[in-house]
Amino acid sequence: MAEPVKLIGSSNSPFVHRAAVALRLKGVPYEFIREDMSCKSELLLKHNPIHKKVPVLLHGDRAVCESLVIVEYVDEAFEGPPLLPADPYDRATARFWAHFLDEKCLKSLWPALWTEGEVQKASMKEARENLALVEDQLREKRFFGGDSIGLADVAGAGMLAHWLRVLEEVAGVSILNDEEYPALRRWAKEYTANEAVKECLPDRDQLLAHFSMIRDKCISVAKSMLQK
Amino acid sequence: MAEPVKLIGSSNSPFVHRAAVALRLKGVPYEFIREDMSCKSELLLKHNPIHKKVPVLLHGDRAVCESLVIVEYVDEAFEGPPLLPADPYDRATARFWAHFLDEKCLKSLWPALWTEGEVQKASMKEARENLALVEDQLREKRFFGGDSIGLADVAGAGMLAHWLRVLEEVAGVSILNDEEYPALRRWAKEYTANEAVKECLPDRDQLLAHFSMIRDKCISVAKSMLQK
Repeated sequence: MAEPVKLIGSSNSPFVHRAAVALRLKGVPYEFIREDMSCKSELLLKHNPIHKKVPVLLHGDRAVCESLVIVEYVDEAFEGPPLLPADPYDRATARFWAHFLDEKCLKSLWPALWTEGEVQKASMKEARENLALVEDQLREKRFFGGDSIGLADVAGAGMLAHWLRVLEEVAGVSILNDEEYPALRRWAKEYTANEAVKECLPDRDQLLAHFSMIRDKCISVAKSMLQK
Repeated sequence: MAEPVKLIGSSNSPFVHRAAVALRLKGVPYEFIREDMSCKSELLLKHNPIHKKVPVLLHGDRAVCESLVIVEYVDEAFEGPPLLPADPYDRATARFWAHFLDEKCLKSLWPALWTEGEVQKASMKEARENLALVEDQLREKRFFGGDSIGLADVAGAGMLAHWLRVLEEVAGVSILNDEEYPALRRWAKEYTANEAVKECLPDRDQLLAHFSMIRDKCISVAKSMLQK
């Protein structure tokens, strides 16, 4: 297909990372359109009026939204190495783990990072339990689906391999230590060593500056609310 | 395939309904294994150790969990009328709306039903905004993907067409009125008129008794906690 492919996104987002990695793994050339999330563009609002979020994939005049929907679309619409296996049961397993990482595992990290006291203690317990389930899955495997990166890896590895380290530093919290999760750590290293993935990983210092700024803004908003 | 198909579930669950409808629409014979969710079986815990929830689809010795993963599995593993279209963009659109209904629209109904005061007011506003987006989508269409029931319909119509009426009555709250959402209401009627769907709809009085009992249990637990 000769229709142009464009990805509306922000390099700081682990969700945009999923879409970018899918395109690179399939070998699809694309233009990256940088979105300023503090002042959303007409282009973004036109093509994702429901969620108003990045990533949005533009393929010719059609727009695809939601990062995991984009990954499956890229797999089905373009030639190149498959991101999902052919067998229906293996496909269901990949979708199950992608969904677990997206909806349960990654979401449980936020309160573990950004709350305090008893709430943080309970959140940390839940986050670690979820990570232990991922660890179990990866013990005998290189990637979730076997020897190559697939849907479930794309769903979770960017966040767990790259973003989480930065967020832990900004929040002053440790969740994912190497001793407790050796298989997960090994998986994360293999993922970030892939050439296609490497090209979609934002610079660590850039991420650190970005999330430190967000944290400072949140603290300042909270302080001004308390003073009212 | 001659491997037996079994569905572990509860007839009161709108998530189990999704899996059952998918099987019936594809014409796949299956055995329904009733699960007592107040005392979970070894069978359930063995086949869904991660979430410990219904539905679980057993196909021979393989288990598939998570209702929307099951619907896609059933579509891919069995012959019969397709639940997802063939074109990658149409498939992405179906997945987008299934995800919107599952993660955003249906989840926003719970606080609108079960909270009070300002929290309920804000939740009700969000729930209605989400329903309005669904209404917009359905204005010119019979079902989400065209003239036959597909993934997105299966994801949302059971809850919006059948369960919500009962939950509104139990909670003493009105969210989905016919005047505001005529397209949604028409869609819901067409969905519940389908023969395959009809066979998977629990009796209204049975649902009413079930959710009234749950509400009474919750109130009694809350009261005993306040007395401590």
